[in-house]
Amino acid sequence: MRAPPARVGDELAAVDTPALLLDLDAFEANLGRLHGDVLPTGIAVRSHGKAHKCPELGRRQIAAGAVGLCAQSLGEAEVFVRAGIADVLLSNEVAGADKARRLAAIAGEATVAVCVDDPQQVAELAAATAESGSTLGVLIEVVTGRRCGIATVEEAERLAEAIHAAPGLELRGLQAYAGSAQHLRQRREREAAIAATLERAGPMRDALGVGHVTGAGTGTFPIEAATGFWTEIQPGSYVLMDADYALNDEPPPFAQALHVLGRVISSHPDRVVLDAGHKAVSVDSGPPVAPDGLEPIGLSDEHAILAVAGGAPPALGAPIRLVPGHCDPTVNLHDWIVGVRGGVVADVFAVEARGV
Amino acid sequence: MRAPPARVGDELAAVDTPALLLDLDAFEANLGRLHGDVLPTGIAVRSHGKAHKCPELGRRQIAAGAVGLCAQSLGEAEVFVRAGIADVLLSNEVAGADKARRLAAIAGEATVAVCVDDPQQVAELAAATAESGSTLGVLIEVVTGRRCGIATVEEAERLAEAIHAAPGLELRGLQAYAGSAQHLRQRREREAAIAATLERAGPMRDALGVGHVTGAGTGTFPIEAATGFWTEIQPGSYVLMDADYALNDEPPPFAQALHVLGRVISSHPDRVVLDAGHKAVSVDSGPPVAPDGLEPIGLSDEHAILAVAGGAPPALGAPIRLVPGHCDPTVNLHDWIVGVRGGVVADVFAVEARGV
Repeated sequence: MRAPPARVGDELAAVDTPALLLDLDAFEANLGRLHGDVLPTGIAVRSHGKAHKCPELGRRQIAAGAVGLCAQSLGEAEVFVRAGIADVLLSNEVAGADKARRLAAIAGEATVAVCVDDPQQVAELAAATAESGSTLGVLIEVVTGRRCGIATVEEAERLAEAIHAAPGLELRGLQAYAGSAQHLRQRREREAAIAATLERAGPMRDALGVGHVTGAGTGTFPIEAATGFWTEIQPGSYVLMDADYALNDEPPPFAQALHVLGRVISSHPDRVVLDAGHKAVSVDSGPPVAPDGLEPIGLSDEHAILAVAGGAPPALGAPIRLVPGHCDPTVNLHDWIVGVRGGVVADVFAVEARGV
Repeated sequence: MRAPPARVGDELAAVDTPALLLDLDAFEANLGRLHGDVLPTGIAVRSHGKAHKCPELGRRQIAAGAVGLCAQSLGEAEVFVRAGIADVLLSNEVAGADKARRLAAIAGEATVAVCVDDPQQVAELAAATAESGSTLGVLIEVVTGRRCGIATVEEAERLAEAIHAAPGLELRGLQAYAGSAQHLRQRREREAAIAATLERAGPMRDALGVGHVTGAGTGTFPIEAATGFWTEIQPGSYVLMDADYALNDEPPPFAQALHVLGRVISSHPDRVVLDAGHKAVSVDSGPPVAPDGLEPIGLSDEHAILAVAGGAPPALGAPIRLVPGHCDPTVNLHDWIVGVRGGVVADVFAVEARGV
C-alpha cells in the first residue's frame, strides 16, 4: 500500500500527486442535506459504502443518521464489519461455499444481510449458517434491468419458502434497486424506470407479506421516497458526487466534494500535461472535468492533457483539481482519501476496502 | 491490501473472485520470443514495469535479457529500486522539489535516469543531486504527439547545456516514444508515426552528439528496430497482452497471458452476471472479451453481464475468464497476480507498485 500522500497541516501544493481529495465542508454539507431531508420522512438511509470503501466515512454517515451501510462485495462487507460497523447489507449476490462461509462468519460479528436470486444461493447460505451457528438476513432481489434478480412472483415464493426452511436464514424483505436509472438524464425517464420497478416488485411484496423494501440511489431517491413503497434507500455518491451526475436534468442537490489532484509535469503554450491519467481517475462515465480555461483533450494511463483555452498556461508544478466523471471507480484507484478544509489537509483516510 | 485470492496448488475454481490470472507458460513464451528476437540485433530491451508493477516479474524480464526496467511514475521507480532492480529509467517527467529529492535519493541506491522537457525540471534535479551527492541520468524527451517532450533542436540544446552544467546530472541521450502509435490499426499508420518521430529526433541527436535513443512499445518495436536509430526499446505489454492489441492489423506476436477471473453470481437462460465489473477490468480501451458463446452486453462497477448466445448458460458459481481490453490499467486495479500453470495456481505475485 502506498504511503499517505499528505500529512495533516499540509498545504495543497505539498500533497504528493496524483491524490484523491475530499472537501470536508462539502462532505458534511452533503451529509446534512440528505440525512436532514430524508430522515424526517421515516424512510431509513443505508448509505452505500461501495462509493467510498472507507469505514471512517461510513461511521460519519451513521453518526448523521444512517441505519448502517451497504456493501457491494463480500470483501467490502468484511472490512466494514471488522472495522466495527454494526449493520451491513451486502446488496449483491454471492456464489460458492467459500463465500457463503465467509458471510456466515461475519454474520456472527454484526447484523449482516445479503441478496439472493437463486435457490442454490439459499442452499449454500443455509449450509454455511448451519455450520457457523450464526443468523444471516436475506433479501430477495427483484430484477430492474438485465442484471441480478428475479422477475416473477413464483420465483419469489420459491425463494421465500427455501429461506423460511433454513433455521440460520431470516427473510428481511425485498431489494429493488434501479441502478441503471440513476443516470437517466430526464426526470420523466427516471420516474418511468422507478414506476416499472414498483410494478414488478409490488405483487411480490404482497404475495410474500413482507414490509421491507430497500433500494434507490443518489439519482432517484426522491422518486422512490415519494411512492411510499420503499422503506429504505441506499445512496452512496451523495457524499462525493461526480461530473456524470451533474449531467442529469435535475442534478442531485449535493456539492462536488471529491477531486483528483494532479500536478503539471509538462507546460506548453497550448497545453499542460498532468501526472494523473486514467490510473488515477476513472473514464467509464467519461473524462474528468478541468477548471475553467482548461479542457481535457487526452487521457492516457498516467497523463491528462489539458488544452489551454487562452492566456498563460499553468506553471510547471502547479496543482490542478479534476472532477471525476464517476466517483465510485475513481475512489477504487486510490489507497488514501485526503480530507481538505479551507485548502489545508485536515485528515487522511485509508480506503480500506479498495480492491476487495 | 487485500489478502491473496489464492494459494499455490489451488484449482481455478477455488480462486477468490474477481482475480487477475497470469498464465505462466504464455508469459514465459512471450519473454522468450521478445528477448530471443530482439537481443541478437544488438538493441537493448528495457522492459516497461508500468504494465505489471511487479518487481518479481521485472526480475524475470532481466533474467531473460532486459538491461533494466522502465517506470512511468516516481512511486513505481521507488518500488523497483527498493526491490533490488539495479537499473531503472523513469520514462516520464517529474515536477517539484519533493519529487526531485526522492529521485536523487534512489539514484544513490541504483542506476537511475529520468526524462526532462523543461529547464525548471533540470534546475530542480540539479539542486536535489547537489544536496544528496548522487548522480542521476537524464534523457531529453522528444515530443511525439501532444504530450510531454520538446519539439525543436534549440530547446534540446538549451536543456543539454543545463544538464552538462550540473555536476550531479549526466546526459544519457534522447527518449522518443510514440505512445499513441502503438494502437494505430494499420501497419502503414504505425510506420508513418515512427518515421515522423525519427524526422524530429534525428536532428536533435546529431546536434547533441548523443548516441543513445530509447523508446518503442509492444505495438511498434519491430519498426523502430529496423531504423537503426533507436538503441533501446521499452515494451511492457508483451508479457501480458490484451484485446486491444489483438485489433492491430498485424498483432504483436505474443500470446494472451493475462485474464480477469470472474464468477457467475446470477444465472438466467439469456444471460449470466459475473462478480467482475470495471473495478476489476479496465474499460478505457473497450470492454473485455468473453469466452466463445458469451458476449459482454453490460459492464458496471462490480458486474459484467454476458449474453448467452445459445445452449445452457454457465452454472451459478462457474469461473469465467475475461481478456482485458487494456492490460496496464487492469493490473493497476489488483493487489495480486495469480500465476497459473495448467489450470493450477503455481505462484502468487504482489503488485507492489499498484496505485503509486
